Amino acid sequence: MNSKQSLTPLDNISMTDRVENNLRAYFLENAFKPGDSLPGEIEIAEKLNVSRNVVREALSRLRMLGIIESRTRRGMIMARPDILGGLERVLNPFILGNDTLNDVFEMRLILEMGMAEFLFSRKTDKDIEELEAIVKKQSSIPEPTIEEEIEFHTKLYDMTGNETFTRFQILLLPVFNHVFNIYKKENKLPSAPDHIHHDGIVKALKSGTVEDFRLAMKKHLAPYFQMTEQNSN
Amino acid sequence: MNSKQSLTPLDNISMTDRVENNLRAYFLENAFKPGDSLPGEIEIAEKLNVSRNVVREALSRLRMLGIIESRTRRGMIMARPDILGGLERVLNPFILGNDTLNDVFEMRLILEMGMAEFLFSRKTDKDIEELEAIVKKQSSIPEPTIEEEIEFHTKLYDMTGNETFTRFQILLLPVFNHVFNIYKKENKLPSAPDHIHHDGIVKALKSGTVEDFRLAMKKHLAPYFQMTEQNSN
Repeated sequence: MNSKQSLTPLDNISMTDRVENNLRAYFLENAFKPGDSLPGEIEIAEKLNVSRNVVREALSRLRMLGIIESRTRRGMIMARPDILGGLERVLNPFILGNDTLNDVFEMRLILEMGMAEFLFSRKTDKDIEELEAIVKKQSSIPEPTIEEEIEFHTKLYDMTGNETFTRFQILLLPVFNHVFNIYKKENKLPSAPDHIHHDGIVKALKSGTVEDFRLAMKKHLAPYFQMTEQNSN
Repeated sequence: MNSKQSLTPLDNISMTDRVENNLRAYFLENAFKPGDSLPGEIEIAEKLNVSRNVVREALSRLRMLGIIESRTRRGMIMARPDILGGLERVLNPFILGNDTLNDVFEMRLILEMGMAEFLFSRKTDKDIEELEAIVKKQSSIPEPTIEEEIEFHTKLYDMTGNETFTRFQILLLPVFNHVFNIYKKENKLPSAPDHIHHDGIVKALKSGTVEDFRLAMKKHLAPYFQMTEQNSN
């Protein structure tokens, strides 16, 4: 097995880290595919000349990420990981650094400005009707609640037909709201004179061009963009 | 400790999964911050009434993600995880499903269309000079190599000043290229009659508007957008 250890300072990584890195490099270099049989714990321990406890810990990590699975009667096999499983586990706003939290806040804005092409190439009449129903339900109050914001924007992501993208955004939303609430508490929310609400976005999506939609979205997100500018200064 | 186990079918998850989920929920609910002392392996095993081996495996998973660290003389402490560490570990194109690979391919296009606002609010003269130097170096050949593509686009991401965003893209690039090469092998690459090269993008970024830049980028990425349309049919 080749290792990729040279990328990490050796004195900072534990034996378990080394075994884990070794195994991932081994799987990749041998092009193992989901369902392929893998050597067992004992064999790995012998080949790498490490204790079974270390191998068991490393395998447990790979099992958590969905890279491997243990099957009754079949032993250990390669599996199909959830691409976002690891990200999901670290999205705790108390432990991420402020820089990372601000990065995530900005990433939402980037994603919403960038999704226009796929929205227009994939939207259906049924999607638009559903969006209109969501907006109608929300129209009685001047500012939507966080839950209503999430419902509307999640439907937009959903319309791109890109499941990973939609899930990625759903994972990032609580972090986005966490950062937003910090600004709010510090009375740093900017005003947005020509604010566009959800109904304006739907209108652009229904009968406008990609550029009309992007302009509407940009105005809708303007207060958030202003917040990121305060932050850069 | 409360658990979030109700979100996962109980019969499918192992005792290690349950301990890991329990610990993450416990950290979040108690708002532990990086540097805070945590209970040790023995104490956790006693409180959860599980074996030390199971706790050791669960802790090893959390250590891998950077959620906890073991410090000499201080015992176990809460740490600051790398938000993309888990994602990095599963980005093996042989084990991700085709749907996920195509999702990642599309996400790159979304990110590049969505980054314009931050590029314009943060670009510096020095950035533009560096981009021009990169393009000049590449101009001798009609089509840039994958390495040159990466150099140019990574510099763009870099200019947004958003480190997480830049790293996210660098992680996704090999998957993007993997999908691209599959199309290429199947002779499914579309032609792009009004293709815009890197020099056109830099020109828009240097002396144009956000909209000019986005139009240039859209034309530059047009062959990739066409590929995603073949794929949807």
